[in-house]
Amino acid sequence: MVKITTKKIMDIEPLKDAILIEGLPGIGHVGLITAEHIIHEFKGEKFMELYCDDFPPQVLVNPDGTVSSMNIEFYAVKEPMPMIVVVGNTQALSPAGQYQLSQKIVEIGVEYGATMTYTIGGFGTGTLNEELPKVFVASTSKELSDKIKELGAEYRQDGGGIIGAAGLMLTFSKLNGLDAVCLMGETPGYLVDPKSARQVLELLSKIIGFEIDVKELEERAKEMEKFLEKIKKFEEESTHQQPRPPSADDLRYIG
Amino acid sequence: MVKITTKKIMDIEPLKDAILIEGLPGIGHVGLITAEHIIHEFKGEKFMELYCDDFPPQVLVNPDGTVSSMNIEFYAVKEPMPMIVVVGNTQALSPAGQYQLSQKIVEIGVEYGATMTYTIGGFGTGTLNEELPKVFVASTSKELSDKIKELGAEYRQDGGGIIGAAGLMLTFSKLNGLDAVCLMGETPGYLVDPKSARQVLELLSKIIGFEIDVKELEERAKEMEKFLEKIKKFEEESTHQQPRPPSADDLRYIG
Amino acid sequence: MVKITTKKIMDIEPLKDAILIEGLPGIGHVGLITAEHIIHEFKGEKFMELYCDDFPPQVLVNPDGTVSSMNIEFYAVKEPMPMIVVVGNTQALSPAGQYQLSQKIVEIGVEYGATMTYTIGGFGTGTLNEELPKVFVASTSKELSDKIKELGAEYRQDGGGIIGAAGLMLTFSKLNGLDAVCLMGETPGYLVDPKSARQVLELLSKIIGFEIDVKELEERAKEMEKFLEKIKKFEEESTHQQPRPPSADDLRYIG
Amino acid sequence: MVKITTKKIMDIEPLKDAILIEGLPGIGHVGLITAEHIIHEFKGEKFMELYCDDFPPQVLVNPDGTVSSMNIEFYAVKEPMPMIVVVGNTQALSPAGQYQLSQKIVEIGVEYGATMTYTIGGFGTGTLNEELPKVFVASTSKELSDKIKELGAEYRQDGGGIIGAAGLMLTFSKLNGLDAVCLMGETPGYLVDPKSARQVLELLSKIIGFEIDVKELEERAKEMEKFLEKIKKFEEESTHQQPRPPSADDLRYIG
Repeated sequence: MVKITTKKIMDIEPLKDAILIEGLPGIGHVGLITAEHIIHEFKGEKFMELYCDDFPPQVLVNPDGTVSSMNIEFYAVKEPMPMIVVVGNTQALSPAGQYQLSQKIVEIGVEYGATMTYTIGGFGTGTLNEELPKVFVASTSKELSDKIKELGAEYRQDGGGIIGAAGLMLTFSKLNGLDAVCLMGETPGYLVDPKSARQVLELLSKIIGFEIDVKELEERAKEMEKFLEKIKKFEEESTHQQPRPPSADDLRYIG
Repeated sequence: MVKITTKKIMDIEPLKDAILIEGLPGIGHVGLITAEHIIHEFKGEKFMELYCDDFPPQVLVNPDGTVSSMNIEFYAVKEPMPMIVVVGNTQALSPAGQYQLSQKIVEIGVEYGATMTYTIGGFGTGTLNEELPKVFVASTSKELSDKIKELGAEYRQDGGGIIGAAGLMLTFSKLNGLDAVCLMGETPGYLVDPKSARQVLELLSKIIGFEIDVKELEERAKEMEKFLEKIKKFEEESTHQQPRPPSADDLRYIG
Repeated sequence: MVKITTKKIMDIEPLKDAILIEGLPGIGHVGLITAEHIIHEFKGEKFMELYCDDFPPQVLVNPDGTVSSMNIEFYAVKEPMPMIVVVGNTQALSPAGQYQLSQKIVEIGVEYGATMTYTIGGFGTGTLNEELPKVFVASTSKELSDKIKELGAEYRQDGGGIIGAAGLMLTFSKLNGLDAVCLMGETPGYLVDPKSARQVLELLSKIIGFEIDVKELEERAKEMEKFLEKIKKFEEESTHQQPRPPSADDLRYIG
Repeated sequence: MVKITTKKIMDIEPLKDAILIEGLPGIGHVGLITAEHIIHEFKGEKFMELYCDDFPPQVLVNPDGTVSSMNIEFYAVKEPMPMIVVVGNTQALSPAGQYQLSQKIVEIGVEYGATMTYTIGGFGTGTLNEELPKVFVASTSKELSDKIKELGAEYRQDGGGIIGAAGLMLTFSKLNGLDAVCLMGETPGYLVDPKSARQVLELLSKIIGFEIDVKELEERAKEMEKFLEKIKKFEEESTHQQPRPPSADDLRYIG
């Protein structure tokens, strides 16, 4: 059994018919960027932190001399509609940790009024793509998926799975009587990907029915485009040389 | 300690002197095919699902936009004789998970009336074989094994073990006072193998004393034969080239 | 937490001032051979079996169609002096399992009257050695080790440790107020080594003060010598070829 | 859940406003050397031992025939100021073990009067450096870190983390309402490094406000310098040969 500790940051009343949105770190950080953007635009307030002994056994060191503990954070959004948004700087490491953490997140969501779950992830293709990233949907209900498909999502035909919280929260939502949808933004996978997050967010706003300013995401996406142009050009110029892969610093600049 | 959750799907009365049959995924999926065929032919009804935090931390994505959680399912068969048949889409990942899951399956079996256990697995040879697959037997009782040997099974002489639920359910059956038999169908191991399953099923029907239609298994086995012919021919034609190994799609078609 | 289950095989009264002797599988199986020889010569009676979900998740298949579960067995010896001898076909797999199993074995030993612990292991050198294997000693008490050194044992100077039950039972004996000694027979490590076991047993009989017939061990040791001669000769004859390493079957013959 | 056992060695009264200092084994053993030096110079008394089933499953063999169990030890220092100093011969192996052990250490610290935590580690650079090692600081409070920066520490700009007890005790100190500071001495990382420990200790004495004799550390540091000179010279003399890397014995001599 994994040890999970919650720390209440703020007393809040349970929301009414809230949507639980998960965006923990993952492929292309598509979920994290999307969820953080929602918190930022809709002025979400942090009401709970969650610690777990199955997180990486470390603290992160910030450049200003402070440290950040590994944890997961719950934010409450009231307008335009009740939402509980879950972000963090890590996922659990082991299978048991991933199961128990996903269960705990759903249970906290239900405790604070969630009646429906959306998890957000990236679907890694391994290659750069000039076109707009597709968004894939998979859910606990055929009807639900069909509706979302009509709004522009596609179904995955690769026979694979959804690993981590984005997948397991579907299992635990169902076991708790909640419908649950996973939206997966197509992404190369090796870059933090605001462009993919933007597409997911656009679809999500259509599904749920809210308006959200995505300007900031679009700017970040443009920066990424420029960065990728630069890499491409560099690679073309050095066809006879071993191309230099983008360094961690380049990525951080973009991320 | 691993966390195991059961979900009752249907209220049923315990069966009387039932046979517990296990066919979880494994080498050649011999056990799974056999058990699923029994459920199908004898109209087994699902009465319980089992979830475990030691399963792969994911959900599977279906091509129709729905998801399948990793779980194990219990089916009750009433005719031609009482059976509890256990199938699923996974086994536990860790040693502790495999032990505790096997124990739990046996305990549920006993709770619902099982007085004898049959586990079914594949015995991987690593090579294709033109002949009919052998079926090996190993059990908790010398007398029992000797009887099954007379019906056509063989004893393994390789000095190895039976890994996973097919093996550990023998340990826990014995600790619960039940006799238990493992039947292992010879199989190359890298193909889903209905031909081997057919042989196991034929032996099982002789041991237990029931009749079962194996036409469908035979058809699947014939498709596999054709597929293997195709591969063989292909390999012969390309002796100077690197032969193309069967792709996942080929296998899915056959499986 | 690891799950450990005990199964009483026979009701026995606690022994008086018994010696707890551990010989689980390990390097050269020195401990196992020694302990099994003691059980055999002194007609030890099995009184308890121990199962653990941190053992390899399998059963072993015997050539007669039966299976052996992975477990650890406790034997009681009454003459020439009270002993509790612990053997088995496995050790625990994980650190937690090794700690908890060692603790459990010591606790059962104490429950049945043990007031002193001897653990037996191999000290792997990685090379064949014509001379008689040395026996190393390490214990929870300097005085105890010094006495045993006078009887012919040596101290290890390699700065290493004693891994597994043979080491951890020293920690848990001490925490339970018992003195504990580990005897390590020098051994190449890649062969089951009755010659090393013989040397350990000879020293142990001097320390504790009993007489034991080691004829059978000596015969097994001679067989091993012959086998090694054969290998050596083979290697000399094939200096320009890649020498054939001893096969599993050769080893089984000797072991 | 990891199993942690404490063994009281001595009854002591809780200290008043004590400083909890952690120096478990790690990169360059900077923390361990520093903490052991404090215990030695300030005549710390051991009052508690801690055992854990997530430590390496072994005992260490000493050259005098005795063994050392893997454990962590708590020392109480009364003068020049109340301190609880934590040393040991190991850290926990798994993430869960590292979290739970760090939590337990902080809880014991609080129980015995700690109101502030200092953890000490090495910051591995991978290269030898002629200059005095820098000391980096990271803490739970910006103000605290800024003060320590003024005393000569630097902030890390590498974007990395602090792994193990030195990091996680910051998380658990904060969750228990204590401020906590980690000091990291720059070190090549592959040598036991008294020179780096000396620099950390000098800074620590300025921060906390005590005087401590570092002569012994300086002597050990000088020995290391000489040893490194020897290696350097050796490498220069053998530019066309494969240089002999320092052996374990060389390192033990220095360590």
